[in-house]
Amino acid sequence: MDLLSIKDPSFLKNMNNEELVELSVEIRKFLVEKLSVTGGHIGPNLGVVELTIALHKEFDSPKDKILWDVGHQSYVHKILTGRAGEFDTLKKYKGLCGFPKMIESPHDVWETGHSSTSLSAAMGMAAARDIKGEKSFILPVIGDGALTGGMALEALNHIGDEKKDMIVILNDNEMSIAPNVGALHTILGRLRTAGKYNWAKDELELLLKKIPAVGGKLAATAERLKDSMKYLLVSGIFFEELGFTYLGPVDGHNYEELLENLRYAKKTKGPVLLHVITKKGKGYSPAELDTTGNWHGTGPYKIETGDFVKSPSKGPAWSALVSDTVSRLAREDERIVAITPAMPVGSKLVGFSEEFPERFYDVGIAEQHAATFAAGLATQKMKPFLAIYSTFLQRAYDQVVHDICRQNLNVFIGIDRAGLVGSDGETHQGVFDIAFLRHIPNMVLMMPKDENEGQHMVNTALNYNDGPIAMRFPRGNGWGVVMDTELQQIPIGSWEVLKEGTDAAILTFGTTIPMALEAAELLEKEDYSVKVINARFIKPLDVKMLSRLLGEKMPILTIEEAVLQGGFGSSVLEYAHDQGFYGAIIDRMGIPDYFIEHGSVDELLEEIGLTTKTAMKKIKMITPKKEKRA
Amino acid sequence: MDLLSIKDPSFLKNMNNEELVELSVEIRKFLVEKLSVTGGHIGPNLGVVELTIALHKEFDSPKDKILWDVGHQSYVHKILTGRAGEFDTLKKYKGLCGFPKMIESPHDVWETGHSSTSLSAAMGMAAARDIKGEKSFILPVIGDGALTGGMALEALNHIGDEKKDMIVILNDNEMSIAPNVGALHTILGRLRTAGKYNWAKDELELLLKKIPAVGGKLAATAERLKDSMKYLLVSGIFFEELGFTYLGPVDGHNYEELLENLRYAKKTKGPVLLHVITKKGKGYSPAELDTTGNWHGTGPYKIETGDFVKSPSKGPAWSALVSDTVSRLAREDERIVAITPAMPVGSKLVGFSEEFPERFYDVGIAEQHAATFAAGLATQKMKPFLAIYSTFLQRAYDQVVHDICRQNLNVFIGIDRAGLVGSDGETHQGVFDIAFLRHIPNMVLMMPKDENEGQHMVNTALNYNDGPIAMRFPRGNGWGVVMDTELQQIPIGSWEVLKEGTDAAILTFGTTIPMALEAAELLEKEDYSVKVINARFIKPLDVKMLSRLLGEKMPILTIEEAVLQGGFGSSVLEYAHDQGFYGAIIDRMGIPDYFIEHGSVDELLEEIGLTTKTAMKKIKMITPKKEKRA
Repeated sequence: MDLLSIKDPSFLKNMNNEELVELSVEIRKFLVEKLSVTGGHIGPNLGVVELTIALHKEFDSPKDKILWDVGHQSYVHKILTGRAGEFDTLKKYKGLCGFPKMIESPHDVWETGHSSTSLSAAMGMAAARDIKGEKSFILPVIGDGALTGGMALEALNHIGDEKKDMIVILNDNEMSIAPNVGALHTILGRLRTAGKYNWAKDELELLLKKIPAVGGKLAATAERLKDSMKYLLVSGIFFEELGFTYLGPVDGHNYEELLENLRYAKKTKGPVLLHVITKKGKGYSPAELDTTGNWHGTGPYKIETGDFVKSPSKGPAWSALVSDTVSRLAREDERIVAITPAMPVGSKLVGFSEEFPERFYDVGIAEQHAATFAAGLATQKMKPFLAIYSTFLQRAYDQVVHDICRQNLNVFIGIDRAGLVGSDGETHQGVFDIAFLRHIPNMVLMMPKDENEGQHMVNTALNYNDGPIAMRFPRGNGWGVVMDTELQQIPIGSWEVLKEGTDAAILTFGTTIPMALEAAELLEKEDYSVKVINARFIKPLDVKMLSRLLGEKMPILTIEEAVLQGGFGSSVLEYAHDQGFYGAIIDRMGIPDYFIEHGSVDELLEEIGLTTKTAMKKIKMITPKKEKRA
Repeated sequence: MDLLSIKDPSFLKNMNNEELVELSVEIRKFLVEKLSVTGGHIGPNLGVVELTIALHKEFDSPKDKILWDVGHQSYVHKILTGRAGEFDTLKKYKGLCGFPKMIESPHDVWETGHSSTSLSAAMGMAAARDIKGEKSFILPVIGDGALTGGMALEALNHIGDEKKDMIVILNDNEMSIAPNVGALHTILGRLRTAGKYNWAKDELELLLKKIPAVGGKLAATAERLKDSMKYLLVSGIFFEELGFTYLGPVDGHNYEELLENLRYAKKTKGPVLLHVITKKGKGYSPAELDTTGNWHGTGPYKIETGDFVKSPSKGPAWSALVSDTVSRLAREDERIVAITPAMPVGSKLVGFSEEFPERFYDVGIAEQHAATFAAGLATQKMKPFLAIYSTFLQRAYDQVVHDICRQNLNVFIGIDRAGLVGSDGETHQGVFDIAFLRHIPNMVLMMPKDENEGQHMVNTALNYNDGPIAMRFPRGNGWGVVMDTELQQIPIGSWEVLKEGTDAAILTFGTTIPMALEAAELLEKEDYSVKVINARFIKPLDVKMLSRLLGEKMPILTIEEAVLQGGFGSSVLEYAHDQGFYGAIIDRMGIPDYFIEHGSVDELLEEIGLTTKTAMKKIKMITPKKEKRA
């Protein structure tokens, strides 16, 4: 059939299993072709083709609510709800979002991006339904990786306790972004192999029937004993203990099994957990055979060979630069331990994990635990390096405040993907970290201008013994600068003058430095002399340098790829006013007060006016006319 | 024995059980007497007397590490580690902290205050021990209430997976701050009554022996079947599934049982969970018989009668004012749902829960779930009221960003205990909320000047339909002002002039308004005319009023009981500079960049200079001399 003609999922109702299988093939072909050009989360989506079709066939979306945890596996859902025609724009500026988005479709009932939120939201929807006396099915679809996130466990606990009608689909694909860790995964592993025990089940049941009933007491005991069979053999015990009816495991690529179990779940009162086994990348061999996680989310690729189309890059990947430097230091310093919450591939920690297996911890999707685990290590004089994306560090805010900073422990937080991340969009932009870290006492926060300074900052951080220290660095690659062979230490709170100037000063750091330098150079041609300062320490400020600028009544422009409210520029304002420099001319550039959607970083910077052009305009506005300057 | 003579716990090694019982009696008497004067967490501490003594007898602190989750149950530990002499200063300014504190003693190896952190920290300590090849026991003591916190579950999962040697003490007292909720509690309940099944166990084992072995296969099955007995009868299944050896349940007031099990745990490889049943308030009947949670933490009381010594208060408790107004509105609006993460008593929601049981949810210690559960309700056009303390809202920061604000959902967050909370100290001060909420797009944040404005703000919030809205309010009671009978709505983003003035303006809100008014009045006598503005909307600002002040070149002083970095004052600076009012004289008062310890709020305000005197001094500094003013 023509996928582009699909308006809504109602056409599925009349399809038989054979037709559904054909549809699956077409959808897989469509996804593999479209994503080979745009890139996207190919692996997860190929894994849920049958599951998504089965859900939409058996239930009535949007009356029945399907919630996609994490959300990057919602492409098939988007096709079935009339959005196939937009896949050429997937994850592009103003194009189809890579995650569920309410404004795109009424079938997107819950927006995701961060993991483990769907169960709490589903509980909210179920409570609302029951208060209003409505009838509908609530269907959160959550991966086994997301289930290790604390808030998912909090929600399971609450749902089980309240006994709300709800069908939780556990999409168990043996691998989330990286191989899952944690005991929960072990339990799921046991469930997965439960089939092996089936031979014994019948035999045991026969046996149980032979147990003589010794009065009411033993009969009851035998009942319980019989129950325990189920626990032991099918082993849905974990979820059953929490109050769920456990169904499965079900082959997630078999319509007969899927539809039968969904129908059974429909009839079951209270919360149901349907355990579905799927294969990531199903149907496209490069993705299906992948064991590295490289096919989780990709850029463009060649369909025939599965080769990735590499975009040319000048410098090393930032994540690799940071983790390689940590490895280098770990060779000399046995106190260094690396921790990642489920991002060993993204954070390029595979090398570290192989070289120092006893000092490497992938704790799964568990940011809160990761941060406090690091704090615990630091109390014992270890040197923990917590590798975490800016957007996911949000989930450990309280742990950073209460456990790391309050106890002033030597934890080095490597804040990856800081700033705009581009195509993953508003759920993933790393734009809040300065604003949510800067106000915490004891925190040192820095950002390097290039990968050479980056390696020195890593060295600085791992040699710093006065409390927590964090380095933010962007997504993508460095500039390709020459690297020093010897690692140096950068004095805490020291800025660096990159270009001298006498009319105005730009204070900036990290990714926006080239913009500042370009603006300064272009302004030079218009007879403005602009100083550019690498304000590599966001906290503490270089108060000596800043005081001098303020004392000289130098107009100041701050530029940051982060939210303006409470950001670096605000700290400059705060300092100026605290020191009584009331006449100071300080203007700020940064990210305005709304959520920034997906697109290329350049398009987004253009949209919000975080550009060389704006910098030039602002410098001109705050700089006195030439005649007055002399 | 003389408790004051205790230097460290080594004296316990030579005591027999009889002597330990005597010691327990003395410690209970000491606690009941001391706390009757100072107040403190009497219930939890009376519950852990034997447990604490047994731990210190059997293990060698501080080589062996005892971590007190939440930490308010560490008083007995403080007595045994040489701090009995300081109990007269408990929770007082510069006195003994109500929580573990590293600077007080080397026996305090981990500081707590927020719940559910001990397991992550213990995992860090265990990892450090093993990397260094040291030998020691790691003993986190965690309550059943704290176990519902997501990060504790994340940690259990990781510990179980890593199989680290560790003895987790589950202190199950049937009640944390409020009656526990959640399925986990149901499981613990089952464990608690497990004793009942013991009669059946022997009988069943006999039976099992009679099962004929049919070749190797069935023998193996019978083995498994036998194992299942343990699951079924003692039911430690939940923890065993996670990889722990489960021991217990043990009577936490019986030395023989406690010591025997601790010794057994010592010899067990891998993670052990020792399930200890204790009774909160044990040995002091008013506390022991308490079912309301009132004896969890108290002020002073009369020992004989158990009557609380009430301090006189003028107005209603802020929590009561807010929840009563929510109840009042809920009578008319069926969409209103109240949610609390384990604080129904503290948030005074008991009345609401009784009047609207179907619209009340106590989700347990699960702040993340609470926030996203509220978001889920809001997607269905309900009006969720999330009652949460400022310090605990920190744990839901990501959920507020990603789920509530990003989706711009109508959630009303009632931020209780905002500002300095006093004697609970640095882990509980509610001073970061402005800085961590103000930078989130779509958020409206307000604080009332008194309880009358407070009720109107609650009404405003529950009638607001444009996204998230939060009201912060302090610990303690209102001023006792006259209450309007009709509820009104306050225009979003509107400030209010409380006192006219022409020389300078103070912008402030909430608890610091009286200080501002007093300063203005005293300054009047010195011929300064100071305007005082109730800046009740922290976000959005009243830009009309602020622009006028800036246009008039009025010197401005902002005052807030919250951290200065990125706070309200900074938003005023940001606005002034964004609008090009570069010469604006703006000074700020607030909480400086360090963690504020315990003491009375007044003592703390004095320490940080958040006083009328400072306000006066600052106004004089920023106001031009009188001759110039005219």
